Amino acid sequence: MKSRGNRFRKDRTVTENKLPECDDFATGRILTPYIPTKKEECGIFGVFGHEDAAKLSYFGLYALQHRGQESGGIAVSDGSRIIAHKSMGLVHDIFNEEILQSLKGYVAIGHVRYSTTGSSLASNAQPFVVFHGNNHYAIGHNGNLVNAVELRRELERKGAIFRSTMDTEIFMHLLARNLSYGIEEALVETLKRVQGAYSLVMSTKDTLIGVRDPNGFRPLCLGEMEGGGYVLASETCALDLVEATYIRDVEPGEILIIDEDGLRSIFPFPKKPPSYCIFEFIYFARPDSNIFNQNVYMFRKRLGTLLAKENPSVHADLLMPFPDSGNYAAIGFAHTNNIPLEMGVIRNHYVGRTFIQPSQAMRQFQVKVKLNPVRGLLKDKSVLLVEDSIIRGTTTKTRINSLRQAGAKEIHMLVSCPPHRFPCPYGIDFSTKGELIAASHTVAETRDYIGLDSLNYLSIEGLLEAAGAVSSDHPFCLACFNGDYPVQFVDEVGKHCFEDRDPMRPGCNLRA
Amino acid sequence: MKSRGNRFRKDRTVTENKLPECDDFATGRILTPYIPTKKEECGIFGVFGHEDAAKLSYFGLYALQHRGQESGGIAVSDGSRIIAHKSMGLVHDIFNEEILQSLKGYVAIGHVRYSTTGSSLASNAQPFVVFHGNNHYAIGHNGNLVNAVELRRELERKGAIFRSTMDTEIFMHLLARNLSYGIEEALVETLKRVQGAYSLVMSTKDTLIGVRDPNGFRPLCLGEMEGGGYVLASETCALDLVEATYIRDVEPGEILIIDEDGLRSIFPFPKKPPSYCIFEFIYFARPDSNIFNQNVYMFRKRLGTLLAKENPSVHADLLMPFPDSGNYAAIGFAHTNNIPLEMGVIRNHYVGRTFIQPSQAMRQFQVKVKLNPVRGLLKDKSVLLVEDSIIRGTTTKTRINSLRQAGAKEIHMLVSCPPHRFPCPYGIDFSTKGELIAASHTVAETRDYIGLDSLNYLSIEGLLEAAGAVSSDHPFCLACFNGDYPVQFVDEVGKHCFEDRDPMRPGCNLRA
Amino acid sequence: MKSRGNRFRKDRTVTENKLPECDDFATGRILTPYIPTKKEECGIFGVFGHEDAAKLSYFGLYALQHRGQESGGIAVSDGSRIIAHKSMGLVHDIFNEEILQSLKGYVAIGHVRYSTTGSSLASNAQPFVVFHGNNHYAIGHNGNLVNAVELRRELERKGAIFRSTMDTEIFMHLLARNLSYGIEEALVETLKRVQGAYSLVMSTKDTLIGVRDPNGFRPLCLGEMEGGGYVLASETCALDLVEATYIRDVEPGEILIIDEDGLRSIFPFPKKPPSYCIFEFIYFARPDSNIFNQNVYMFRKRLGTLLAKENPSVHADLLMPFPDSGNYAAIGFAHTNNIPLEMGVIRNHYVGRTFIQPSQAMRQFQVKVKLNPVRGLLKDKSVLLVEDSIIRGTTTKTRINSLRQAGAKEIHMLVSCPPHRFPCPYGIDFSTKGELIAASHTVAETRDYIGLDSLNYLSIEGLLEAAGAVSSDHPFCLACFNGDYPVQFVDEVGKHCFEDRDPMRPGCNLRA
Amino acid sequence: MKSRGNRFRKDRTVTENKLPECDDFATGRILTPYIPTKKEECGIFGVFGHEDAAKLSYFGLYALQHRGQESGGIAVSDGSRIIAHKSMGLVHDIFNEEILQSLKGYVAIGHVRYSTTGSSLASNAQPFVVFHGNNHYAIGHNGNLVNAVELRRELERKGAIFRSTMDTEIFMHLLARNLSYGIEEALVETLKRVQGAYSLVMSTKDTLIGVRDPNGFRPLCLGEMEGGGYVLASETCALDLVEATYIRDVEPGEILIIDEDGLRSIFPFPKKPPSYCIFEFIYFARPDSNIFNQNVYMFRKRLGTLLAKENPSVHADLLMPFPDSGNYAAIGFAHTNNIPLEMGVIRNHYVGRTFIQPSQAMRQFQVKVKLNPVRGLLKDKSVLLVEDSIIRGTTTKTRINSLRQAGAKEIHMLVSCPPHRFPCPYGIDFSTKGELIAASHTVAETRDYIGLDSLNYLSIEGLLEAAGAVSSDHPFCLACFNGDYPVQFVDEVGKHCFEDRDPMRPGCNLRA
Repeated sequence: MKSRGNRFRKDRTVTENKLPECDDFATGRILTPYIPTKKEECGIFGVFGHEDAAKLSYFGLYALQHRGQESGGIAVSDGSRIIAHKSMGLVHDIFNEEILQSLKGYVAIGHVRYSTTGSSLASNAQPFVVFHGNNHYAIGHNGNLVNAVELRRELERKGAIFRSTMDTEIFMHLLARNLSYGIEEALVETLKRVQGAYSLVMSTKDTLIGVRDPNGFRPLCLGEMEGGGYVLASETCALDLVEATYIRDVEPGEILIIDEDGLRSIFPFPKKPPSYCIFEFIYFARPDSNIFNQNVYMFRKRLGTLLAKENPSVHADLLMPFPDSGNYAAIGFAHTNNIPLEMGVIRNHYVGRTFIQPSQAMRQFQVKVKLNPVRGLLKDKSVLLVEDSIIRGTTTKTRINSLRQAGAKEIHMLVSCPPHRFPCPYGIDFSTKGELIAASHTVAETRDYIGLDSLNYLSIEGLLEAAGAVSSDHPFCLACFNGDYPVQFVDEVGKHCFEDRDPMRPGCNLRA
Repeated sequence: MKSRGNRFRKDRTVTENKLPECDDFATGRILTPYIPTKKEECGIFGVFGHEDAAKLSYFGLYALQHRGQESGGIAVSDGSRIIAHKSMGLVHDIFNEEILQSLKGYVAIGHVRYSTTGSSLASNAQPFVVFHGNNHYAIGHNGNLVNAVELRRELERKGAIFRSTMDTEIFMHLLARNLSYGIEEALVETLKRVQGAYSLVMSTKDTLIGVRDPNGFRPLCLGEMEGGGYVLASETCALDLVEATYIRDVEPGEILIIDEDGLRSIFPFPKKPPSYCIFEFIYFARPDSNIFNQNVYMFRKRLGTLLAKENPSVHADLLMPFPDSGNYAAIGFAHTNNIPLEMGVIRNHYVGRTFIQPSQAMRQFQVKVKLNPVRGLLKDKSVLLVEDSIIRGTTTKTRINSLRQAGAKEIHMLVSCPPHRFPCPYGIDFSTKGELIAASHTVAETRDYIGLDSLNYLSIEGLLEAAGAVSSDHPFCLACFNGDYPVQFVDEVGKHCFEDRDPMRPGCNLRA
Repeated sequence: MKSRGNRFRKDRTVTENKLPECDDFATGRILTPYIPTKKEECGIFGVFGHEDAAKLSYFGLYALQHRGQESGGIAVSDGSRIIAHKSMGLVHDIFNEEILQSLKGYVAIGHVRYSTTGSSLASNAQPFVVFHGNNHYAIGHNGNLVNAVELRRELERKGAIFRSTMDTEIFMHLLARNLSYGIEEALVETLKRVQGAYSLVMSTKDTLIGVRDPNGFRPLCLGEMEGGGYVLASETCALDLVEATYIRDVEPGEILIIDEDGLRSIFPFPKKPPSYCIFEFIYFARPDSNIFNQNVYMFRKRLGTLLAKENPSVHADLLMPFPDSGNYAAIGFAHTNNIPLEMGVIRNHYVGRTFIQPSQAMRQFQVKVKLNPVRGLLKDKSVLLVEDSIIRGTTTKTRINSLRQAGAKEIHMLVSCPPHRFPCPYGIDFSTKGELIAASHTVAETRDYIGLDSLNYLSIEGLLEAAGAVSSDHPFCLACFNGDYPVQFVDEVGKHCFEDRDPMRPGCNLRA
Repeated sequence: MKSRGNRFRKDRTVTENKLPECDDFATGRILTPYIPTKKEECGIFGVFGHEDAAKLSYFGLYALQHRGQESGGIAVSDGSRIIAHKSMGLVHDIFNEEILQSLKGYVAIGHVRYSTTGSSLASNAQPFVVFHGNNHYAIGHNGNLVNAVELRRELERKGAIFRSTMDTEIFMHLLARNLSYGIEEALVETLKRVQGAYSLVMSTKDTLIGVRDPNGFRPLCLGEMEGGGYVLASETCALDLVEATYIRDVEPGEILIIDEDGLRSIFPFPKKPPSYCIFEFIYFARPDSNIFNQNVYMFRKRLGTLLAKENPSVHADLLMPFPDSGNYAAIGFAHTNNIPLEMGVIRNHYVGRTFIQPSQAMRQFQVKVKLNPVRGLLKDKSVLLVEDSIIRGTTTKTRINSLRQAGAKEIHMLVSCPPHRFPCPYGIDFSTKGELIAASHTVAETRDYIGLDSLNYLSIEGLLEAAGAVSSDHPFCLACFNGDYPVQFVDEVGKHCFEDRDPMRPGCNLRA
């Protein structure tokens, strides 16, 4: 499982650098307005009924760290009050024994957020906690709303003061305005207003709640501890780590309430066909997880098998994954086609977050700090690469160049999903349409831009076959491949803003 | 000028330690609800029309550091947006060259907050900044509201989410709900709702505003820069430092608006007699400042002169201030009565914020780390001490004990103000009534508790005479001495909570 | 390429915890004597004739980080003086742009040291720099001396004051006592006294020197920069990164002097047969490096090929490396034997240096935080594991247990080297003889201890065949496998101390 | 008691900034050679026979912090080994409860060093600790040797490697070379070689040793704890703090050995007349200390009395000390002459170590950040200032200017010691002769340079009279006033280097 998000992160650097941060009345940071909406992938975790709920959450977040490396936090309740700790950074940096000891309670939720270079916002760290009169509630969100700008404007007009640039805060304000109905009813009222992708963990002083939007874009599963108690997690790898037994997924459209009386479900929406994010399978989820009722490792191996079937005539001296993203598809491919598998690029595990700027003459060093091709292996060879996906293509281009320098004679590439031609409004941080190379380039143009001898993508049919589904009736969201958006934008402004995402354009972000 | 607030700080240690902190959705701290209202003294500063407004504010806050050592911050605008930086700590720790360089603009406000031991709240650091749709505003507050609990409850019922435990946040929410009227009208509407003590500096993208409550409890003055531009400051010592010329005080009840068109004033309230906090003169303000149109140093010298007149028969081998609090009154006394002035207690300037816990046998060391009596001077002498005030009496008792150990034969004390018998709801952190020694002890009992041979306070008449005022018609708030509160509590609950300030008592704090 | 040294580190925890650190007159640490000799693997790098020598060294050390994660440093000279910076931590944490900018010069040496848990010594960080009258010299050392204790005692008797617990310091003192002969002669005199393994980089104000001991235990190679200038490096992967062309290895017994006049060599010792550390190939070096004139990746693949040949009858449903240590041998195996290769254990890349202590019930979590088996893949399967080596066996045992929990039915293991039965005195931190499981257990006993269904090691003959050598005449040190030590201990005390390494035993460490 | 050394510190800034630091093989700092000899004032403390020796030392150093703010450290022994902790910074920053808990033992020595701006050296922090074979010893030094350069060169020729730029290290190397004689004899041999000023505290595993040079330049006193055990301290204020009873001063030329058998003295030198540093009385020591058998506070008051006697005709509206340095002389003056005493400059207690660089227009702010004159008091007044001493005159000039700006009509100054015309080689960091204003300017020229209306110094006779001594036969070193050096320089080079102290000049520092 590789370190995630470099390609995506790089993509955003340019626009983000224009925009300093906004941290409202929080402390210790330069504050400024005008931050564009961010579309982050995140990981969520919840515990009910375990005496050491915070420590359990800590380990759960550790397992979900690949879903977000920017910030993390845990909110815990002992039945009488919620306390929380959150910070920028990785889970193992945010918490220590002393902090975890101080987070006493039997109900907890935890959250990790995606890492973005440079422009992180401390006030965006979750879970968000609200102390509202005698009510306390905490919430952690994975996904992205499509009517966030509209709702924020409406709430601000009514006097709400927003503290973050996260759409998650909209849940908090809507809840606060409906609390007189009781927390459950307030939650139902809140969900009626929001549209888009959301898997939520939420807690009050004595209740754990899991929510999945009606489309079920993002995963969320339920497990049971051996000694009693329940956990919620984005992926089953977190259940594995805390030795919880998987029970079932929280269903699309379900509000699952866990308290002293056990489990209760509310389904406030009419049933609709699900649209699971298939890119969770292709890239985001950990290979040792099961999500949407399938094992990710086996799914990815099938992607490789189908790549082999769709490309029977490909020839090369050796096959290699780009470390480590195409590992499992490459294995699947190698079990079908007998091109020998090698690991011809060595990854440096000691790479830090910040780089020393190389002087002009050292410009190339930066790539090799992280990944160095094995010259002895690659020299004069024709190489077949298996890559999981190509977003902008810039990183891939640089890497291909370093393989050429190491002596590779021919370089062919197979990509284990179809071309990304449409941006995602549901929580995966694909750049705007303009930044997706496949949105504006043919496969041949992409091949030439990257510098490959050949380039082939898996077909949508192949992708669905790997998922065990058929084209006509499948439960997946394929919008990033085919532009078929399961949840529409509420108005034209929102749609434009999304498609051409220009954060400085009036009306296009949560701040304007 | 001595380090402020130790006596007051100690007083609160007990109750505060019960209460962990609350930091809402901000990051990096353990969060928890139930913090009592705090009544802090603070310092505020504002700049309009200077190209280096943030750096000017930095120096202004440096001069006002004695008014608050817990946290500080600066918000600055270049006309198009507000950015801010704030943090826990002292001004010289919070800012560095790089941060100040990044705070570009010509309008700025700054704030420092009182230091309290242990239970500081990062989310309470000011200025508070709000980005509300297209409106940005920042606010810094010195003083304390008496109807904060009531207003907070009302606002929460309407769906407001509070982030801090500061009554200052009430201004922000009231403003947000009236913004449709424009910022000035919204401010007038806001001021109509709040009651108590408030000197405010406020900024929008292109305006600086100074406000003083109708009673004028806290000081606020206006100065002009030589090269153009205006500054607002709690005390004139800040004008001295930035080389601004003092123009006038912002008047009680005045909203002073400074923008490109110059100065404008709004007086939204009917005129009423002022009630300046006389304890600003006695203790809080810097001796080199002028406040309420008088010089503090000369005022304090007159306190000493009047002490000498009221106590003509006092005899001692030497006279000494308790370092450094009674310095100026002691000088005034020495100019009238010829007891020789000495500085018989040496202060260690290198004392840090935290102490190593002495082992049992070393318990006494802690006092002497800070202040060591000069044995060679004090041995077998009768000593007359001049103290500015006695709040709880515990610190004074400890210090008297160390003078006895150093060999002082007789110890007499003169206090340069009347006994503190009533708590202050207007922004000075006197403990509850129960903790003021003079509220429950006669002068003789206090003398015996502290271990003095004699103890005499200045009379209220003497205090007013030093102020150049007369008893029947004076512009001061003397509530802490005589219980005559210029602004009443709005209801019985508030009054009770204030008087017996028990933070855990339902209804008595901003959280419940 | 995996994170190194966990197995070795764990081995030492017990004894090290008894021993606080010793940091002589350096600052900021608790100091104390009695540290045992440490035998660390290290990485060294040198530059001559490049205007940005420090930055080049920075990138060189980045590539060599796998050889040492405890501390690092760079010393640089501009021809008139040496300046240096070093610290505990990883290369990317130790240096930043500002520090590198301040390290101006055209001659530099760099060093990284092995990471050991807990008992790190800031004063042991290299390069060591000496300012001795008008002479400046800096030195970085990879290897371990076998007569360090004796030499240190002798030098101390003569009045030398040692500052570190590193045998490297012995070079400094011997050099200082011979400086009147000039630096080159002093170096020759120094080398005459020391015995054991040493690859050195050394610099004076205007010279770079590379040294390899007569046996050539540790690697050291020479490269040339395109624009002129030379680099020295432990491994060629560092040449790759800085885009230097490999010229040749520094030869065993060679003193290679690089200055303005070019390259010069001194061979102060009679030629003797080399004894290259074969464990550099098996485990330590990066797979993309060439050392001792062979490519490491290809060598390891041949280990797998020979494992397959020596174990023709092994059967399993799937083959997998233990991540990531056996990757390349597993690939070599898979190319010979057709058991399908899988990567059935997922590694968490976000694991930090410190773990929260799990409560009793969470004891098992700690293993899974780092490595999680893919249940869906392993359930009811027979698994063949390829491991690079087994030292103590404890870590392997724990991991095997987690595979069993994930449902693996049978577990067989092939180890790509012979059993480690003898400790190494030449710079690889194998535990004492008593801690090597193969020193006291038969293969069958080891298999049962670890919990395997079968266990087979590569033979010494197979190992040599992979190296392209023959048993009777090969250039390798195989002492850790066969006890045949190329350089003997100087006396019986040293030998005993080494074999039973008890750091508290008088006479057995550099401190007693 | 004021914060020390600003004037002296400033004096050195120029030359020091040329010179980066040298930290030998210690870590975490940029290292470089060529540091000039430093002449620091320091504070030393020692404990024998107290179970909590480290914590006692901590409090002792707290009381001696005014003697050195650059670095501090404590070395402690439990009878079997010495451990130590030291660092840059103030005592309260260097130690915390955990560190002090780890420093277990009944013998301890502590040290604080003078603060110099910017160019501090971590490796210069004391106590120095040596682990030499089985011998451990630690040493802390106050004073300065006059033959340090010569001894260092000799020792380096013999192969010694120096780690610091402190002359203290010379003691360590001389001791190491004589250890075969036993520690006491080695110490005697060491003292025979060194010349100059040294008060030492030293410890072995089970012994505390105090040493004072034959001239007794620097103070050192002995005290006894109530429950048993002895302490050594530079000044009695440290005895006061730890509640030890003063017994006697360590005598000039005495080696005082304290171990389980009690006290023992060695006098290795022939008796000679003492030459106590009189500037300790005038400026350095704390007013609550007794040193050289007199109370400092009373001494300084007598300086004021004698100033009044020597200047009977001085007239002014008010008398004020420059805060806080002339406080006690001003009090002495005021008791004799009836000019009213005022404290007309207010000191800001919150000034940090680093300043934000004011922009050009704000240049004057920097002075006022620290000290602000009280305009209301000074306007149109003639002011008489009492200053303790004038070294370079630059700081005084700046401050006089700010008094002028505040409206003072006439400014007269009395200095409570004679003009400083000669540099000090015995441990007080007076600048070179060229930097002492009185070395090159008449009193009238100095008066005009500073901008005073009149300037008068105390006479040498007055100074001696205040000390209760007579001109013909007194125990003081007056070298800085009259150039009469009690210990001569060993050679012409040393003398020149000292007088014109140019750190870059060959032969003039410990590094060349």
